[in-house]
Amino acid sequence: MNGNTFGNYFSLTTFGESHGEALGGIIDGCPAGVVLDMQAIQKEMDRRKPGQSTLVTQRKEADEVRFLSGIFEGITTGTPIGFTIENTNSKSKDYEHIKHAYRPSHADYVYDQKYGIRDYRGGGRSSARETACRVVGGAIAKQILAPMQITAYVSAVGDIRVEQPYTALNFSQIESNAVRCPDPKVAQAMEELIRQVKKEGDSVGGVITCVIQQVPVGLGAPVFDKLDAALAKAMLSINAVKGVEFGSGFAGTQLRGSQHNDILLPNGITATNNAGGIVGGISNGMDIFFNVAFKPTATIMKDQPSINAANEVVTVEGKGRHDACVLPRAVPIVESMAALVLLDMLIEQYGRQGWKNFQDKK
Amino acid sequence: MNGNTFGNYFSLTTFGESHGEALGGIIDGCPAGVVLDMQAIQKEMDRRKPGQSTLVTQRKEADEVRFLSGIFEGITTGTPIGFTIENTNSKSKDYEHIKHAYRPSHADYVYDQKYGIRDYRGGGRSSARETACRVVGGAIAKQILAPMQITAYVSAVGDIRVEQPYTALNFSQIESNAVRCPDPKVAQAMEELIRQVKKEGDSVGGVITCVIQQVPVGLGAPVFDKLDAALAKAMLSINAVKGVEFGSGFAGTQLRGSQHNDILLPNGITATNNAGGIVGGISNGMDIFFNVAFKPTATIMKDQPSINAANEVVTVEGKGRHDACVLPRAVPIVESMAALVLLDMLIEQYGRQGWKNFQDKK
Amino acid sequence: MNGNTFGNYFSLTTFGESHGEALGGIIDGCPAGVVLDMQAIQKEMDRRKPGQSTLVTQRKEADEVRFLSGIFEGITTGTPIGFTIENTNSKSKDYEHIKHAYRPSHADYVYDQKYGIRDYRGGGRSSARETACRVVGGAIAKQILAPMQITAYVSAVGDIRVEQPYTALNFSQIESNAVRCPDPKVAQAMEELIRQVKKEGDSVGGVITCVIQQVPVGLGAPVFDKLDAALAKAMLSINAVKGVEFGSGFAGTQLRGSQHNDILLPNGITATNNAGGIVGGISNGMDIFFNVAFKPTATIMKDQPSINAANEVVTVEGKGRHDACVLPRAVPIVESMAALVLLDMLIEQYGRQGWKNFQDKK
Amino acid sequence: MNGNTFGNYFSLTTFGESHGEALGGIIDGCPAGVVLDMQAIQKEMDRRKPGQSTLVTQRKEADEVRFLSGIFEGITTGTPIGFTIENTNSKSKDYEHIKHAYRPSHADYVYDQKYGIRDYRGGGRSSARETACRVVGGAIAKQILAPMQITAYVSAVGDIRVEQPYTALNFSQIESNAVRCPDPKVAQAMEELIRQVKKEGDSVGGVITCVIQQVPVGLGAPVFDKLDAALAKAMLSINAVKGVEFGSGFAGTQLRGSQHNDILLPNGITATNNAGGIVGGISNGMDIFFNVAFKPTATIMKDQPSINAANEVVTVEGKGRHDACVLPRAVPIVESMAALVLLDMLIEQYGRQGWKNFQDKK
Repeated sequence: MNGNTFGNYFSLTTFGESHGEALGGIIDGCPAGVVLDMQAIQKEMDRRKPGQSTLVTQRKEADEVRFLSGIFEGITTGTPIGFTIENTNSKSKDYEHIKHAYRPSHADYVYDQKYGIRDYRGGGRSSARETACRVVGGAIAKQILAPMQITAYVSAVGDIRVEQPYTALNFSQIESNAVRCPDPKVAQAMEELIRQVKKEGDSVGGVITCVIQQVPVGLGAPVFDKLDAALAKAMLSINAVKGVEFGSGFAGTQLRGSQHNDILLPNGITATNNAGGIVGGISNGMDIFFNVAFKPTATIMKDQPSINAANEVVTVEGKGRHDACVLPRAVPIVESMAALVLLDMLIEQYGRQGWKNFQDKK
Repeated sequence: MNGNTFGNYFSLTTFGESHGEALGGIIDGCPAGVVLDMQAIQKEMDRRKPGQSTLVTQRKEADEVRFLSGIFEGITTGTPIGFTIENTNSKSKDYEHIKHAYRPSHADYVYDQKYGIRDYRGGGRSSARETACRVVGGAIAKQILAPMQITAYVSAVGDIRVEQPYTALNFSQIESNAVRCPDPKVAQAMEELIRQVKKEGDSVGGVITCVIQQVPVGLGAPVFDKLDAALAKAMLSINAVKGVEFGSGFAGTQLRGSQHNDILLPNGITATNNAGGIVGGISNGMDIFFNVAFKPTATIMKDQPSINAANEVVTVEGKGRHDACVLPRAVPIVESMAALVLLDMLIEQYGRQGWKNFQDKK
Repeated sequence: MNGNTFGNYFSLTTFGESHGEALGGIIDGCPAGVVLDMQAIQKEMDRRKPGQSTLVTQRKEADEVRFLSGIFEGITTGTPIGFTIENTNSKSKDYEHIKHAYRPSHADYVYDQKYGIRDYRGGGRSSARETACRVVGGAIAKQILAPMQITAYVSAVGDIRVEQPYTALNFSQIESNAVRCPDPKVAQAMEELIRQVKKEGDSVGGVITCVIQQVPVGLGAPVFDKLDAALAKAMLSINAVKGVEFGSGFAGTQLRGSQHNDILLPNGITATNNAGGIVGGISNGMDIFFNVAFKPTATIMKDQPSINAANEVVTVEGKGRHDACVLPRAVPIVESMAALVLLDMLIEQYGRQGWKNFQDKK
Repeated sequence: MNGNTFGNYFSLTTFGESHGEALGGIIDGCPAGVVLDMQAIQKEMDRRKPGQSTLVTQRKEADEVRFLSGIFEGITTGTPIGFTIENTNSKSKDYEHIKHAYRPSHADYVYDQKYGIRDYRGGGRSSARETACRVVGGAIAKQILAPMQITAYVSAVGDIRVEQPYTALNFSQIESNAVRCPDPKVAQAMEELIRQVKKEGDSVGGVITCVIQQVPVGLGAPVFDKLDAALAKAMLSINAVKGVEFGSGFAGTQLRGSQHNDILLPNGITATNNAGGIVGGISNGMDIFFNVAFKPTATIMKDQPSINAANEVVTVEGKGRHDACVLPRAVPIVESMAALVLLDMLIEQYGRQGWKNFQDKK
């Protein structure tokens, strides 16, 4: 465990710093014979990339993926898939002012303490730019998982939230607005809040909800690699995430067992789905759904007191490019991490070629 | 990844079913030269074991640990520590009535679907009885981690909750009541609620808060094995857990960055601790704290409709022994899983013998 | 990697010292639904256990395996299989004389240096007694692998060797003599040599040949987890092993490519088998065969100079129980380790339930 | 375990096919603070690259490594080191003739069987071109391991061999000839043999000996991750390797224990070194040495019968670029794999920063 590999049967190992030459990764354990839709992969990248709307950071990155191996004539060969994403708009100069200072609630201080050295340019490895590589892996995993559907959306920004359960929402509306919220009215209010916060030089947090449909029964490896445990790890590995809850979550703790239990009907369907599709750490075939809490991003356009490497008090100026709210861009990241977990568990249960059984049913 | 090993550098592999002959495990990677306090280990076992108070299940198990290797003359040798816990009060007959039926919100159905076979006696491997082995590992990890302090307590049962932050509580009160809540008044209300729910043949959920103090800076392996990601996985691997939140958690999503950022003071101390002691996936030396959501336990003393293995509708009778509220007994489990994560990360960062540096400072 | 787990998809974790209370292990990832032949498992244990003939050490151990979990009504459930083997005839007093001394070519010195502490009784964890647990795992793996056949035999003791290739031998003769050599005449000469060496208080090494038949094509995970690489690691993990060679081995290095190449015939059969059934790290469907070199066992009944923990020169007396030649007892260990590798690779390629496809063809 | 990662604490994951766009890899777990000598890395690459002498294949590849992350201002940061090596002289057309045919003793057939698809250009992933990435990892590991010295040389080509033990050789002569043999006379005979074999359109095998000096005591993780077991896996993972032997090896099997035992002298020095520096799977501080057997390379310039994907008998023409003897170029690969193992074990025993203790003693 050196920190930069995710997954066991379908594994993604990544590298790259915010302002290094390039990011990249290796996908190992990919089943052979998958016909890849390269445009669909790039489309997922575009959902995450900076500069896609006026709501998000204006760093300009094409985030074009170059695949170097493991794919022959458009088909996966079962050998490792290596890929790179060049950094083309990394302005290291922007970070001269924090060369010796530690930004509050950023990882600057802990990286310096842990490693004894720190690439201060844009947060180095601790930058969310690293998540671009996760989307490459997730986009490929998604294609293999089809017809399983993984859908995430922004369900809260600050105190503005979608009140309805996911079952009452129209997922086709998610990409129709810059916030990625399926309720158009709430989306508009969220946008306004983000613009207001941005104008104030501040930032705001929120919640992303993720729903996984068409899940086969049996995914998850108890007792320690339960499906929800693996998903929780995946979510908490995303920058700025502070919590996760499955099914009834924290609210469900106030219920009685007689209210909370999901009654089994013929064919294993349950009358309710307080479990959120996972029982005993194993998928039960019902929809999986969970909420992911994102704190407000640490970068703000305000001056803040802090310390430097010499342990002196300094002022960290509020300047540079940033997202006032990371949630819209985090939607494909949440989906990607979920996809990586589910494909890993699919292979665990059904073998490397097991996905074919599910795709044949399409 | 076969599901029954937790940890990488200090790993615990467990086995055992609720009503099998015995439970047990192997701890591998334990540093050599640790003088073990055997009574302290048994004391942790006693905190988890059934029958310890009238609030919890009356199954009688001594939960005595027999160590078989890896310890010579009371000192760890660096070789694997094997141990067993005999099942002495397993009444398999109690489960004849569910031999063919699937209990609602239990893992009966998914285990049968995943494995094609099911040990129906008391839930088999999916029973929380399995967690006894985790406490063995956790109790040893705790001793090595000292002077780090890991303290969990029940902060909510149903809608009764401790309103104060952990910093305002007196941890020495936790073991003074059967609920393991440090606020005596709230503890009493919780007890009453649990007794009431029990009388109704029902069950109730709640929240456990865990606090880790005296943490060295630098624990955690970004980007995928972040300390909070590892803790999240650890918590979600515990039966009945549906969510986890670190520091400001879900509530923090409603704050602005300027409110949420923790200002760095000299020596890396932060003025506030919204981060909950973890930044960028690495401990920053401040207290780590998080909440763990437990759903109401699925076993209730009421008849419920369900299905059986032949896909027929049946009635599952409400009988057997059970906990109306699992939280009091789950407190040492939460602590144990946290201890396993922290020791794993301590070795990752400071090497197998790195613990000595911290213990020397005592 | 903490040293005591072997295998990835079908993993065996073991514990136990030569003179501790018990040995044991946990098999994780075992496919569900396997009907186990318990007598066949014990039979494999008996082939390894001490005292089985006058050729081997006279320590008396029943080596009875107690299974504690993972098997319900004789069938594997897919949950971890825990087991123990009690040490019943461990005479710790026999080792008082080496409490402070390091025996030559034993692991006493390096264990003390590595761990800073040493269980001196019979070599502790470094004793070959540890391999008993491997045979439990191997015996189960063998049953799942059938109709694949894994056969090992003693092909050399000192300078007495079987000159014929394995294809000219009658494997049914292997168990007909105490040495486990399929050529009766050579077996007799080997026996005489071992008795002579034993009388002299000395020990002797030799070679075990292992043959695996009915192997499916496609086992092995290049590039680093090649089938031969995994088998090599497995063999070198056995006490006293100093080398391994596959197919043409060291002798084949003297050939030309035109002599050594195995010509492919229809259906992938090869005209010769210099490869030993593995090409590019993947099984090609031909027989796999390899030789394993065992050095003479370090324990001899002669006084030898050495040092003690205080770095003083001492004399280590030649006393205690020992094997003058470990090879006869090592035959089931070689087979077991090979079985663990093959089952691991079978699951890697064909999934957890892939074995059924092969067993159905019986 | 997906096959393309080597090492646990210091891990190398690689990708790339012989004729794909590029090769590359990710080193994870590299200690922070290492000042890297980039020229020394390229020098190791040059020892392995094709076209370096008239003895080896004339494919022209600069084999220049581009580092993309993990190194900041020439110093490792503790984050993953990503790198790529472009394929610049890959003539895919050269392989049209084997598009449907399986070359004898190549991995063509087994890759097609295992994956159901095959990148036929130059052997794809099964090509030894893949080993270029190992040398990158090994070259970095070597620098961290200093003052430990890892030296490999060609000790046999066909039946021409170095008769003296390594202790009688002058290692400074190794790079003085194209074969990489420290005995100049033997080197000349080897060269002549290779030229003769090449002229005949044939190939020849041989043996590489590897010696590791200045090894700290205590490396290796018994019982399954013994140092020799890990080295054996590393060696057998190299293309064309068919065997490995440590210390006295296969010849030592003919000795008596009283001849073979290495008597311990004060400070743990041994009078002889039949063990080859490893006892009980742990380094004892003496030199580690082992032999690695390479079969003659499968590619020859002669026509050979074979089959194609349609199971028809075909003739595979002898054409293309190849090495008549791979051993000279394999010397840095053997050293690299040894370095990866030793650094992995060094971190296991002494922690991520443990190397500093050894470098300080220089």
